[in-house]
Amino acid sequence: MSTHEARLQALRAQLKRDRLDGFVVPICDEHMSEYVGAYAQRLAWLTGFQGSAGSAVVLPEEAAIFVDGRYTLQVREQVDARNWAYVSVPETSVADWLGAHASAGARIGYDPWLHTRAWVDQARRALAEAGADLVAVDTNPVDAIWPDRPGPSKARLEVQPIEYAGKSSGEKRQGIADFLGKSRADAVILSALDSIAWTFNIRSRDVDRTPVALAYAVVNKDATADLFVAPEKMDDAVAQHLGNAVRVHDRDAFRDALRGMAGKRVVADPERAVSAIFGALEGAGATVLALRDPAVLAKAMKNEAEVAGHKAAQARDGAALSRFLHWLSIEAPKGGQTELSVAARLEQFRRDTGLLEDLSFDTISGAGPNGAICHYKVDEASNREIPLNSLFLIDSGGQYRDGTTDVTRTVAVGEPTAEMRDRFTRVLKGHIALATAIFPHGTGGGQLDALARQYLWAAGLDYAHGTGHGVGAYLAVHEGPQRIASFGGGGEPLRAGMICSNEPGYYKAGEYGIRIENLVLVVDKAVPGAEQPMLGFETLTFAPIDRRLIDLALMSAAERAWVDDYHARVMTIVGPQLDGEARSWLTASCAPL
Amino acid sequence: MSTHEARLQALRAQLKRDRLDGFVVPICDEHMSEYVGAYAQRLAWLTGFQGSAGSAVVLPEEAAIFVDGRYTLQVREQVDARNWAYVSVPETSVADWLGAHASAGARIGYDPWLHTRAWVDQARRALAEAGADLVAVDTNPVDAIWPDRPGPSKARLEVQPIEYAGKSSGEKRQGIADFLGKSRADAVILSALDSIAWTFNIRSRDVDRTPVALAYAVVNKDATADLFVAPEKMDDAVAQHLGNAVRVHDRDAFRDALRGMAGKRVVADPERAVSAIFGALEGAGATVLALRDPAVLAKAMKNEAEVAGHKAAQARDGAALSRFLHWLSIEAPKGGQTELSVAARLEQFRRDTGLLEDLSFDTISGAGPNGAICHYKVDEASNREIPLNSLFLIDSGGQYRDGTTDVTRTVAVGEPTAEMRDRFTRVLKGHIALATAIFPHGTGGGQLDALARQYLWAAGLDYAHGTGHGVGAYLAVHEGPQRIASFGGGGEPLRAGMICSNEPGYYKAGEYGIRIENLVLVVDKAVPGAEQPMLGFETLTFAPIDRRLIDLALMSAAERAWVDDYHARVMTIVGPQLDGEARSWLTASCAPL
Repeated sequence: MSTHEARLQALRAQLKRDRLDGFVVPICDEHMSEYVGAYAQRLAWLTGFQGSAGSAVVLPEEAAIFVDGRYTLQVREQVDARNWAYVSVPETSVADWLGAHASAGARIGYDPWLHTRAWVDQARRALAEAGADLVAVDTNPVDAIWPDRPGPSKARLEVQPIEYAGKSSGEKRQGIADFLGKSRADAVILSALDSIAWTFNIRSRDVDRTPVALAYAVVNKDATADLFVAPEKMDDAVAQHLGNAVRVHDRDAFRDALRGMAGKRVVADPERAVSAIFGALEGAGATVLALRDPAVLAKAMKNEAEVAGHKAAQARDGAALSRFLHWLSIEAPKGGQTELSVAARLEQFRRDTGLLEDLSFDTISGAGPNGAICHYKVDEASNREIPLNSLFLIDSGGQYRDGTTDVTRTVAVGEPTAEMRDRFTRVLKGHIALATAIFPHGTGGGQLDALARQYLWAAGLDYAHGTGHGVGAYLAVHEGPQRIASFGGGGEPLRAGMICSNEPGYYKAGEYGIRIENLVLVVDKAVPGAEQPMLGFETLTFAPIDRRLIDLALMSAAERAWVDDYHARVMTIVGPQLDGEARSWLTASCAPL
Repeated sequence: MSTHEARLQALRAQLKRDRLDGFVVPICDEHMSEYVGAYAQRLAWLTGFQGSAGSAVVLPEEAAIFVDGRYTLQVREQVDARNWAYVSVPETSVADWLGAHASAGARIGYDPWLHTRAWVDQARRALAEAGADLVAVDTNPVDAIWPDRPGPSKARLEVQPIEYAGKSSGEKRQGIADFLGKSRADAVILSALDSIAWTFNIRSRDVDRTPVALAYAVVNKDATADLFVAPEKMDDAVAQHLGNAVRVHDRDAFRDALRGMAGKRVVADPERAVSAIFGALEGAGATVLALRDPAVLAKAMKNEAEVAGHKAAQARDGAALSRFLHWLSIEAPKGGQTELSVAARLEQFRRDTGLLEDLSFDTISGAGPNGAICHYKVDEASNREIPLNSLFLIDSGGQYRDGTTDVTRTVAVGEPTAEMRDRFTRVLKGHIALATAIFPHGTGGGQLDALARQYLWAAGLDYAHGTGHGVGAYLAVHEGPQRIASFGGGGEPLRAGMICSNEPGYYKAGEYGIRIENLVLVVDKAVPGAEQPMLGFETLTFAPIDRRLIDLALMSAAERAWVDDYHARVMTIVGPQLDGEARSWLTASCAPL
């Protein structure tokens, strides 16, 4: 019997002891984080699945694993078909499947610290149709049978200095207190880790790739706060930074604190706070106001210091990436380089800056056909040598104290085909259309998404991902609330100070992938004769776009001018940081079209 | 004391008798119709307000009228400031205002046949915050004090013949029955008048401009139906058309029918069925499934017969409009023509076809500055002479048995300014960008809206309305579920067979208005080399676009070719219907740019 089969049997035995007829296992933590710590990787431990999104349901006689289109192939390789049925979301939701598979009278367990209330309501309704019940557990049955489950990270808290944060925690909490006053609320629960890091100007290393601390917080209408975090993570500098207006408690005291909020009007974010938080507040007799976490929008609109820091980080990161692209232009055509070797080399160029704290996500290093897998994560098994006459796609970023970067370049290794150049040029034209868009206040990113797709659509092509996501300030590389996409936060108005990615692409399965990604800042745009204030984008990322892949016949004069102007700015910002052959290579790469 | 002041006092006295501390008066009927019959014009009767959207709240000591930005000026002219406070929506919702103005313990009445359940829930929550209660009334207190309230229309039912409908009512009801089977439901309530007209292939004249009958219907899982309609509206031909599978009842029997649905699983549309329907079903012990009315999407996707009929109607309507534009080109520069006189002349050209059943909406005939009022409705008081050297905007449409049209043309009378030509050309470029868009299945109209705005946005300009709405087949000129706009149905995927308007505009307050509107059909587009099936638009409306207003310097070669090709098609379709001077005028108006 395989390890994972034994674990599934152990879970079924545990469910029997807990008098449950089933259990739901999502990839999630108590903070609804996008990336979760090792201690919360219950789905991977139980099933072997290594993707970043998915869920499982275990019933007495059957078990199913639910993944989206990105992981259709991967789940079949990693999860044993003899024990698990594969189900595709969103075609079939966990709730739908439960409604169809649970037997009448069944008690299906879930951990209320790992689901939103909306999910719970939907699953409960679906089960009710089948005459079954959804039951919150006090302790997660997976944890009960996971003997060597990792403990939470013991990383220290660090202060994010005011020169980078731009605004003190006291000012930020006053802004939250003003929001509470307007909402006639006494307090707000912050459970999203990046909201807490932003509000208190603290960072840590509890989660890979995102410099946040595992914590909860309550901010009160008098602008004081209660911060719930493991005491061993604190030192004197952090305590002094937090000051007297922030009362620090052990993370485990959070549940009791919720129970002590009887009679208060408390804001909790239905998208970011888990069901257990709503349940505890309601159980305590608090009035819960389901409103968005007030840190979310404030955090998304970067202040002057954050923008200045971001630009410094971008200049540094652009130089590291340009050095890498120069190196790659020499080494790749020789043969022998692999996806892993070049990703390591790029990381080294970033480390050489002396200021890299972490990568901002696992580098996507895709040679030839692997470039066509949008969320490709290279490992020893999938690692490919970079072949001649192919496209190589590399999507990477760094976490620096002054900013978080995210950039994708696609380069020709050897001779590209005419089709590759056609596709690259269409992607580039979409990138330019978005980069140069002018739009009124109130416009959501979803309204602009088609600008980036139009030239692909005209040829019957498209890409199966959004065009842009928000980016944090030495925080999460994927940050809400805005998004340049028809889904998610696409309706959220873009506001000056927001940083977004601009990353159209094209993916030909089994052959190659193309993506051109720069970060852009939403800025006020002065338009002569304008009847209303307008917004637009300022491009923040500086590294050459491969001129060999541009089909000039498809480019308008204005588009050519944009590329030339962009490359001139690359020379101005990155040029002085390079010398010798790298500088010569950059000059040639940035020559006018 | 004015008439309206007396009515307000009478309502307050009635509320006292009904032991209510306030009442909400919307412009609405029991079918959530966009245009409501005279019998339901309670707001106009009470306040004097003549707009098509708004609500009022009457409290013992104060009263407020709520209108959106379109009616900010109009409400001040029509409604007495001494008795009414003006409140702007959506900035302040009725619910918000009630929460802030109702006193603790107050009982605020509402008519549950005139509000959605979502509205009721929101208003109830807001009032609960103020310690007040929202109370459903059995009979509307406005009706109790409205002595000469018009009765419902007595218009006869008419059969929509299969040659235009394309699909029998039996087939349509079988489609609905299939949906009920999939939803495990016993029946669906149809209360939207156009859904009923479509489902049963019947039409009537109970509402101006929209050929529907005041009715309710229940379609059952066996594809039989119960139709609730005043018996005096029926004749033998209609009875025979409906057949044995449709049981006809008096409209007043609908409430009792809802009460008889105990134990059934019944679909009702939360956007289209009023709160009272949900309340009656739940009160009866039915299980209500809040799902979209299944006729809505089926109706929006026109079948072959409906498309063929629409094209015939468009050819006829385009000839009438072209004759009018020729007439206008001669008469307007002479002076003496007014908004009313030319609207009447256009209606006559449409009547001369011999096939006009009604206009599809009140003609928007805007000379000079009146053209800048988006929803302008000309009357004797506002009527303007068409001045020389101005722009004239006319938005109009016809109801024909075979199709519903909606078209806007903006023409120069005398010499346009360079600014007018610049603005017109930007609007035209946006119109063309939308008309030529290619997009994948699943794309919502909201994703395409910016294509039509981009050239205005680039100059710091915009228009404050959506770019496109759905259009019915001898039904409502505004039809859901799709919309080319960032709001409303903008997320609804466009599907082959849907008819939408393409109507970008530009409005310079106090000077002139521009709008270029054609109807377009969503069609499959064959794109050579496409990796997926694509959709696009086929333009359906044919009448010249004023060449004198086009600034060629702003037009790309592809855009010029689009205009020339469009005008060539106008010549092919409309040309043969005209002769003499009109034909010569059309030829000159359609000459290549």
